[in-house]
Order: sequence, then C-alpha cells, then structure tokens
Amino acid sequence: MRTYRLKQLGSVDGLVLQEEDVPEPKSTEIVMRVRAMSVNRRDAFIVNGAYPLPSQPNVVPLSDGAGEVVALGSAVTRFKVGDRVIGSYWPRWRDGRLTPDLGDQLGCTIDGMLTEYAVLDEQWAVAVSEHLSWEEAATLTCAGVTAWSAVVGSEAAHPGQTVLTLGTGGVAIFALQFAKMMGCTVIASTSRPAKAEKLRALGADHVIDYAAIPNWAETVRELTDGRGVDLIVETGGPKTIGQSLAAAGLYGHIVLLSVIDAEGNGLALPGQVYSRTMATLSRVFVGSRARLEAMCAAIGAHRMRPVIDRVFPFAEGREAYRYFMRGDLFGKVVIQGA
Amino acid sequence: MRTYRLKQLGSVDGLVLQEEDVPEPKSTEIVMRVRAMSVNRRDAFIVNGAYPLPSQPNVVPLSDGAGEVVALGSAVTRFKVGDRVIGSYWPRWRDGRLTPDLGDQLGCTIDGMLTEYAVLDEQWAVAVSEHLSWEEAATLTCAGVTAWSAVVGSEAAHPGQTVLTLGTGGVAIFALQFAKMMGCTVIASTSRPAKAEKLRALGADHVIDYAAIPNWAETVRELTDGRGVDLIVETGGPKTIGQSLAAAGLYGHIVLLSVIDAEGNGLALPGQVYSRTMATLSRVFVGSRARLEAMCAAIGAHRMRPVIDRVFPFAEGREAYRYFMRGDLFGKVVIQGA
Amino acid sequence: MRTYRLKQLGSVDGLVLQEEDVPEPKSTEIVMRVRAMSVNRRDAFIVNGAYPLPSQPNVVPLSDGAGEVVALGSAVTRFKVGDRVIGSYWPRWRDGRLTPDLGDQLGCTIDGMLTEYAVLDEQWAVAVSEHLSWEEAATLTCAGVTAWSAVVGSEAAHPGQTVLTLGTGGVAIFALQFAKMMGCTVIASTSRPAKAEKLRALGADHVIDYAAIPNWAETVRELTDGRGVDLIVETGGPKTIGQSLAAAGLYGHIVLLSVIDAEGNGLALPGQVYSRTMATLSRVFVGSRARLEAMCAAIGAHRMRPVIDRVFPFAEGREAYRYFMRGDLFGKVVIQGA
Amino acid sequence: MRTYRLKQLGSVDGLVLQEEDVPEPKSTEIVMRVRAMSVNRRDAFIVNGAYPLPSQPNVVPLSDGAGEVVALGSAVTRFKVGDRVIGSYWPRWRDGRLTPDLGDQLGCTIDGMLTEYAVLDEQWAVAVSEHLSWEEAATLTCAGVTAWSAVVGSEAAHPGQTVLTLGTGGVAIFALQFAKMMGCTVIASTSRPAKAEKLRALGADHVIDYAAIPNWAETVRELTDGRGVDLIVETGGPKTIGQSLAAAGLYGHIVLLSVIDAEGNGLALPGQVYSRTMATLSRVFVGSRARLEAMCAAIGAHRMRPVIDRVFPFAEGREAYRYFMRGDLFGKVVIQGA
Repeated sequence: MRTYRLKQLGSVDGLVLQEEDVPEPKSTEIVMRVRAMSVNRRDAFIVNGAYPLPSQPNVVPLSDGAGEVVALGSAVTRFKVGDRVIGSYWPRWRDGRLTPDLGDQLGCTIDGMLTEYAVLDEQWAVAVSEHLSWEEAATLTCAGVTAWSAVVGSEAAHPGQTVLTLGTGGVAIFALQFAKMMGCTVIASTSRPAKAEKLRALGADHVIDYAAIPNWAETVRELTDGRGVDLIVETGGPKTIGQSLAAAGLYGHIVLLSVIDAEGNGLALPGQVYSRTMATLSRVFVGSRARLEAMCAAIGAHRMRPVIDRVFPFAEGREAYRYFMRGDLFGKVVIQGA
Repeated sequence: MRTYRLKQLGSVDGLVLQEEDVPEPKSTEIVMRVRAMSVNRRDAFIVNGAYPLPSQPNVVPLSDGAGEVVALGSAVTRFKVGDRVIGSYWPRWRDGRLTPDLGDQLGCTIDGMLTEYAVLDEQWAVAVSEHLSWEEAATLTCAGVTAWSAVVGSEAAHPGQTVLTLGTGGVAIFALQFAKMMGCTVIASTSRPAKAEKLRALGADHVIDYAAIPNWAETVRELTDGRGVDLIVETGGPKTIGQSLAAAGLYGHIVLLSVIDAEGNGLALPGQVYSRTMATLSRVFVGSRARLEAMCAAIGAHRMRPVIDRVFPFAEGREAYRYFMRGDLFGKVVIQGA
Repeated sequence: MRTYRLKQLGSVDGLVLQEEDVPEPKSTEIVMRVRAMSVNRRDAFIVNGAYPLPSQPNVVPLSDGAGEVVALGSAVTRFKVGDRVIGSYWPRWRDGRLTPDLGDQLGCTIDGMLTEYAVLDEQWAVAVSEHLSWEEAATLTCAGVTAWSAVVGSEAAHPGQTVLTLGTGGVAIFALQFAKMMGCTVIASTSRPAKAEKLRALGADHVIDYAAIPNWAETVRELTDGRGVDLIVETGGPKTIGQSLAAAGLYGHIVLLSVIDAEGNGLALPGQVYSRTMATLSRVFVGSRARLEAMCAAIGAHRMRPVIDRVFPFAEGREAYRYFMRGDLFGKVVIQGA
Repeated sequence: MRTYRLKQLGSVDGLVLQEEDVPEPKSTEIVMRVRAMSVNRRDAFIVNGAYPLPSQPNVVPLSDGAGEVVALGSAVTRFKVGDRVIGSYWPRWRDGRLTPDLGDQLGCTIDGMLTEYAVLDEQWAVAVSEHLSWEEAATLTCAGVTAWSAVVGSEAAHPGQTVLTLGTGGVAIFALQFAKMMGCTVIASTSRPAKAEKLRALGADHVIDYAAIPNWAETVRELTDGRGVDLIVETGGPKTIGQSLAAAGLYGHIVLLSVIDAEGNGLALPGQVYSRTMATLSRVFVGSRARLEAMCAAIGAHRMRPVIDRVFPFAEGREAYRYFMRGDLFGKVVIQGA
C-alpha cells in the first residue's frame, strides 16, 4: 500500500510517499481502507514543525479520514467489515475532560490518515451517516468537531441569539452551518463578493465585508440593534481579536480557535473595549469522541452536507497542503484515497 | 369600557361582563387596548377555584393578551403610543430566580387581560414582533413561555437530540415548534389521525397514536434506536408519567407541567423503571420577563406563527372557557378584543 | 489465596469462601493485595438477586476495597509496587456520561474485592491518600462517590445554602461530611439521641428526630426561615419522598438514591406539595473515575476521615453482610483483608 | 447633615464636604444613617475621571456603606426602623443578567454612601448579619460581591481544587476567605513577609512571594503537582496576566477584575502559553442583589469577618482615598460615619 510519512519537519517537502505492507489488525483493532482525507491548519503547523505537540518521527499525517472497515481484530465488537467510519481526533479521549494521559492525536503522535490503509483501535473510530460521500465524511474529525464544540459546546446558543463567524475556512463554514441548524441568526464575514453569495446560500443572515470595513465591529453592532453578538467563533486570532471583542455583546462568548499567529504574536485585548463588556473568552481543542458522536448524530438527522473547496488526488497530497496553505478557501481541502 | 370580572369562584358562570371607566395611567403605567386574549389551563383552574394561588376578589382574568399602547404615564420610557405589547405572566419577575415577593400573576392576584383596556406598569409589558397578528401575539405569555422554558430552559437541547411532546394543547404545540426551531428531532403524539397530519405539517418527525398504543414508551424507544428521548415536555401528568419515564433516555430530562390531576392525584414513579435510568424531573412555572423577551426574539427572527385552534368574539368569553375546558384542541383558544 | 464467590443468589448463604491461585497480572493489569473491603446496599441487593443488573455467575462480590499493588503487568504505567489503591465502581467509565458499553460494575459483572488478591486493569484503580487507614480507604468507592456526586455533582451547593441528609448510613454520613467541607449548613436526621450527638460532632448544624416528628418537613422549614432546603440527599426512598418534597425549597434539588423499596414500591409525589415548588429530582449512580479522583483529592486535601460503624474479620464476611442488612448503622461496615 | 460631593473630577481634591438637609423618604424609600463606608478601586477611578461610566455631577461618592434604617416611606415593606442594612452596587439589578437599563451604580450615577444620611429605594438595600460591626458590614457591597461572583460565580470551585489570589487588596482577601469557606486549597501571593503571615492566618495553604520570584507561575505549578490552578482571581491586570495564564490548569478559569491599567494598557495573552491551555477568561462586574444576598447568607452562616486595613474618621474622607490610592494594603479601607 502507499503511505505518506513526514520524514522531515520544516516544509511540505518533508512529506514522502512510500510503499508499505498493509497492516494487520491486532485484537481490538480495525483496518480501514481510507477513501478520503482532509487537511487542517494543525496539519500545516505539523509539517512546518510549529505545532505545540511534537509529532512522532515519520508519522503518517492527517487526523481526518473516512473509509470502510476491511479487517477486524478478534475482539472487535463495535464494527463489522464494510462499516463506514472516521477517526476521532484525540483517540483516547472518550468524554468529559481531556487529561494529559489522553493527549495522543491522530496524525501527530500516532499515525493518521494520509495512507491507503489505516489501523485504529476500534474505540478510536465512529460510524458516519450514509448520506455523506467519502469526501464529505473526511471533513468532520477536526474542523467539524471544533466548530461543533464552539457553537454547541457546553452552553449552547439558542434561537433569537446571533453568532458571528470569520471568513470561509473549514471551521467557519461548519460553525455557520451548525449555528443555522440550531436556529441562531448568523453574521458571516468575507472580503470576496463571490464568497458572500455562497455564505448567504448556506444560510448566513448577514455577510460583512471585513476588508472594506476595517471597523466591522461597528457594523455588527448595527446589525444587532447595538447589542453585539452572543457568540463569536474566533478563527482569526491576533489580527481580529480587537474587532471581535468590540463586536461581542455584554455577555458575549468568544471561542478562540487561534491564539498565536505565524510570527508568534499572541492576542492583545484592547483595555478600553474590554472594560465595557462581560464577554467570556474560552478555548476549544477539537473535542472528545462523545462530541464527535453528538455532531455525527446531528449531521445525520439534518442530512447536512459539509462544504468542500477542492479535491486532490492521492498522488497530489503535497499539492493539497500547498493549496491549503495559500488560504483563500471556501470550505475544506480534501484528498481522495489511493 | 367592557370588562370581565370573576365575581364568584366555582364555574365559568362566575365570570361577569360589566361596564367600567377606561383606566388612567399613573406615572410609570401604560394603558393598553387589548385586541386579543387567550385561555390557559391555569385560567380554568382559577375560575374553578382550584388554583394553588388564591386570586384577588373580582379579578379581571387571563394572563394572555395583546394590544396597542394608547396612553402613557408621565414617567414611561419603555414604550410610546401605538406600540404593540403583551404582558408578562409574573409581572414583577424580571430575570434569574422567582422569589416569594415576586409572586404576583396577571389575571390572578392582579387584574389581567379579559377587558377592553388594561393598565400595566411599563415594566410588566414587552414588545411583540410585527409579523404576528393580534390573535397570534395573544398566545405567547403563558403557554409560549412555558414551552420555551421547558425546551430551551437553562440547558438547551441540541440538534441530534430528540424531544417528545404529548398531545396537541397550546404548550405541546409550542414545544414542538421551538424544538424544531432548535434543530431537534421531535416525536409528537395524538390519538387523532387528522391531528397527526397537522403535527407533521408543523415539523414533527414522528407522530405516535398514544390511544392505539398504550405502551407507547416502547414505540418511542424503537424510534430512538433503543436509547429513549433526551427531553420530554410532560404536559400529561399522573396519567402519562409512567410511560414518559419509560420513554426517557439514560440522561433524559422530563419537564413536568402538570403534577396533579383534577382528582388531586400526584405523580407515581414506577420503581422498576426509575431504577434503570438517570432521568431528571424538573418543573417549570412559565418564566421570567427575560425568558419572555428571549422567546419573542426567537419568534421574531424565525417569523414563527403560533397555532390557534379557534377564535371567539369578546362577548363570548365564557363560551371560550367552556370550549377550552372540553379539551380536544389543536393549539390555542383565543378571544378577540372588544 | 482465599476468595469469596457468590455461588447462589437469594441470601448471604450463597457466599462461599474458597481457595484459589493468586492471579497473575496481564499486560496492563495490576494485582492488589486487598487489605480492607466494605459493604453497600447494592451488595445486599446482589446477594438477594434483587439488583437490576444481573451479576456474573460465581462473581467475587463487593465494589469497595483498598489495598497495595503487589504485581504489575509489563505495560503498566500508572502504578508501581507498593502503591495504595482502590477500585472504581464502574471501571470502564472514565469521565463524562455513562453509556451502555461502559456498564460493567466491580463485584457484579466483574470480580470485585471480597478476596485476598484482586486483579484489575490499571485504568480501573486510583491512588488514595496516605492519611487514610486501609479500613477508611475501603469505604470510598461506592458510598463515597455516591455522596460526592449528590452533593458536589454538576451544580455544587455553596456556603449559605442548606443541605438535608436522611439517617446515618454510609451515603448520608459522607454527604454530611462533604456538605460541611463545602461550607454548607447541614440538617441531619436520626431517630436515636446517641446518633444525634455523633452527627453534631461531625458538623451537623441541626439534627431532627424524624421518628418523633412524623411531619419533619415542617421542622426543616422552620430551621430555614420558611424557605426549605437547597439540596436533599434522598437516601430514604418511597417512605420519605413525601416529606422530602415538602422540605425542599422553591428551587430545591432532591438527589434520589433509592427509587424503589424492597416491596417494589416506587416514589409517589404528593400533588398538592409538588404543585407549589420548582424542586428538581435527579438521580445518581455512583459516578465516573473522574468523580472518584476529584473526591479523593478533596479527602486528601482536608484529611477527611470516613466514618466506620464496625469492622469484621475476613472470615466473617457473611456476618458483615448480615449485620449491614439489619440496618441501624452509623457509617460503613468494613471487612478486614485476609 | 454632612455630605461629601464630588464637585470636580481629576483628583481627591474634588471631594467637598458640605452641609445639607437630612433627606425625607418618599413612598418606597428608606433613610439610612450611614455608620461606616469603604473605598474601592472604582471610587479612585471615579474621582480621577477615569471610570468608564460617567458619574452624575456633584454625586455623593462610594457604593459601600452600612447603617441603620431611621425613616421609612409610607409604602415600605422590606424594612423597619432600626434594621441594619447595606446598599446594592447596581441597585436596579435584582437577579439574572445585567442589562443596559439596569446600569445605575451607587456612588456614580446615583448618590452613594459618603454622607451622614443616605436615602435609598427599599429594593436597593439588603439586611446584614448582626455579627458584623458597622465597619465590617461597610466592606461588602463592592469588593465582597466581586470576590463572591469570582469564586462562587455560576460554576463554583469545589474542595480538592486550588484557587490562586493575587496580593492583599480587598477583593483578593475576600476571595481567599470565600475559597477557604468553600473548602478549596488556596495559593495566595504577596511580596511582604508580614503580609504572608497574615494570609496564612486567614487560611492560605501556600503563600508565594511574587516579587522574589518573577516567574511565579512555575512555583504555582510545582505546588499543584504540575497541574496548575483551577481558578485565578485576577486582580492584577496587564502586569500579571502572563504569569496567571501560565499558572492556570488545563481547564483553568481566570476571572478578570482588571483589564486595563492606569496607562490604558490592555491585557496581552502570550501566544505560546495560551496555545497549550484551555483556560477560560471571564469578567465580573460586582454582581446582582441576589448575589449580594447569597453572599450575606454565607457570611452570616460562617460568622465570617471581613478584613479591614485601616479606619478613618468621617472628616478625613479625602485622606482615606489618598491612603487607599497609595496601595500596599491588607484588606479594606474604611471611613467611619459622621
């Protein structure tokens, strides 16, 4: 079988495609034929050697992959051959709180999905809805659960409340979709008119051109009768946090997905703004398997379709990374299985 | 002006229509021309003298009414003449928890809405969305907020979860509408095929005929792959609690709207059933003004339309009560303003 | 080694003491020399064949046991030889919510602690504070975590609030201790003057003689200036629920530990009482390993000492059960290790 | 009577003591003979003209004051002459969430406590425990409730968890006292050995010398076995937030009391640190009357004694401000009533 391994940190060139034996499942393991994978920001950090969690030498990258079960260890009870599954980002984190001993991540400290066949403990995988294509199913593990945790999280937003999303990356678009699914009003943002149309088609109630309006927080306040928004899925980081804080309602909740930029800058919270609000800032690190399962149940019930920007063939895995890194996306970058 | 007053407890015959002077607003008061009212179960209890909270002698009944502001006290700041408003069930309960000193109720301890003109402190009223007719707006104060508290409450249900509603009364139908607005799957129930169709038209994913299937909890479990439902809006009371408990999921939440029946029976929780579940039972007493405002924001954002069973003219107020008391409704019983 | 096994359901006579080989630990397992065990109500139900979860044939009973690690599987990382440990009631339930696949219980579906040596997966055990004797450490797994879940739970009580405990069984006394540790006011109850003294010595602010005052809910209301209590650890069941409901404050929380009595009666909730309160009823099934760890941290920080009623030698395991079943205890019934 | 009024913003010299008539209570008002007052950081900001909320011209400053009721309006029901009361910081905010229309503050937009007699609507005052001296009772309204909201808040810390307090100002010491009352382990910090002793006497489990150890976050982690603390009452602001973030546990909660310093700097969150933690940052603005009442109940139940640094006579009100502004306090700065 063909497998990518991260032979050297620093750039996408460290990703090497090689031949390996198809793995055999041990007792509680399953082997999955990976039909599609997707790239996330953390995968770019990992190849660049800039991810906080050191990756295992020669790791098979990518947390996100969907495929069918093709072989079972003798003790497997959760799946049968032919089941459609995806992996869980933190395979050992079942529910409740993350603890240090549960810190393994697919595609980082343990082998991930950029391979023809992946082997997983059966507890690391969950079933996905039949209505999803392989490519769609391959988008859920990281960006999907991150957005789910941010929007549904422990204290869900509710109809009549307003959610703000930033840009058109994978997490932002999932956040828009989940927020609409939950009956919230959504203000989305993009600098491209063509993307604005697509955001509206996905249900965005308002779309702001953040490039045309540097002080877009004011626009957000106007759109909310001066109140500010209830929830911000803050995918921007140091460049946007000032406006986000200004756009938050009195009890607004800002979920931070990015707290450091490529130059190492952290978040600066403008004092004049923050002294006038009770906004809460919290972080999300993807989520547990229970969160993944809850999200899959919702996606199945709503027959929701993830948004894919572009699909690359397996042989062009490195190009998929490079395309992802250039940014200017609308949804997820997917790689087809070998 | 014409006003109904409850001259004698015991039956609807105690309701007397009489002529009175149009009230003048004091400092912080507004006068509201009541364009429509609606009847709730508590109103039936009040005329029958069976309500736990003693009503004021000769009270103007009904908590629910919608109308326009026609006069303002000198210190009013929240409203202007012409504003469309409804009253808050517990006028003094603004937010947070109910306390004994906030225990006044419109149409019970203080004069309510079955009148041509009602006078309210400006803090007791909230604005309603323009998209609602007077009749629709008049359904929200009691049944609407009760359902909102039950479904959205402090710990909201989320997409992928299942909500069970019982019957087709005002609260049950609002609960169905709010649960769908929030992206939940809804199992509704009725014994009438014609009503089943209407429930489906309102978005119910499944409708159970509880009369045909006495052990309908089993059907609910089948519809949820054996898991049981996440939230039950328990409008039934002593007759249904056994099945409801059996229909609840392991961490199910049963919101009790009715804990005593006309004969004074309370709830009996079957031990064998309850010993196998972690279900929580909680109560709801309508809700605060903050809840009412949150619900109105959601109804406005979704342009949701309340469901009305039948509208009576003002002169037939007693007939409206009697019709309500016969049951077998689909939505709210409304009375038009004088 | 000597081991008790439950050879026949129906009575304590089904417990048979026999000789077995000392177990060898597999890869991730530890062997624990059990120095002390304790009996819980569920253990009595199990020997009587009245427990909702069927026990494994010939199971080694008891969930509660404390001892030292004497042997390690090759892959063990959490413990070393000599560590002092106890087991987790639901060994597979780590954190978050219980799910059906996590339903194994020590001393029921898998072998428990009434034995000289117990073998556990290392994930099933947690370390206990050095300040505890073996006998004290052996009281925590079931009754301790049950009380911790009830009192600290997901929404902790706080100083200035009042907690009511019923009687002097293991859970009630732990609940009293935890509630005092959290700064709550505690109303305890017993029918025995000598026990009342001991409850006061443990910190109870008030002690009610429930036998002398059948309508003790009224006394509770007097002690709380008419408000009722904030939290009731309802260890009583069908016989006490009526008074408990009457003793609960407007937003009181009643945690149900017993929802069925020996005759199969469930809980009857008096309608007149329940119609005047917003009290919530919830259930607790012991708790996850995360709860056990949180409780152990608190016990260690406070150097709290569990209360033991009586200690039996290992050879008198059946007598310990019988003594427990007679009731009239003050704290836990413990069995010393072989 | 004698009253201080803030005649000019910019410095303490703007505070002018003058003679006025003793106020008469209107319908729902009480007149309170103020026996003691205390100074808070916001009072310093107000006299300096640096408070975000503009103060009323010639306002009587200070939110904090305790005294006895000496006269009642005709409609007063909550109090009688002789009752011991304090005011609520946001007099109109009863419970639940703060909204813009509830934004009045005692001693800022409405007259406060630096006066011989204060007149308050009866809803703006609460009773205080008999065990407190006037001076002690006068410390609770602002700093007490702020600390209570931070420590007990909506999601209380629990025994076994660790709380970090910074310095020895009023809020920090109240936070230490409440955290101990709740059974938490407390790490306090100060640069003065004499204060360290006093902190230990108040129950601090550990005291860190933050001046001697610039990287004190590391010390906090050592004291918590590497885990970091569960709750930080962040009274420091821009100068301490970096260390606080580094000291927070994986799910730590940092309650921000100060988000801007005298030079207008906001908080800078170090990216490398924040990218490794899930810590939540939230803000507290004192709290509602319901919070004040809950805190008073706890203080009464525990007969807790607030800590006073120094008491000034009424005539030396300006000196009290200046002393407060110099800092280096241990507890509250109090002014005796006229």
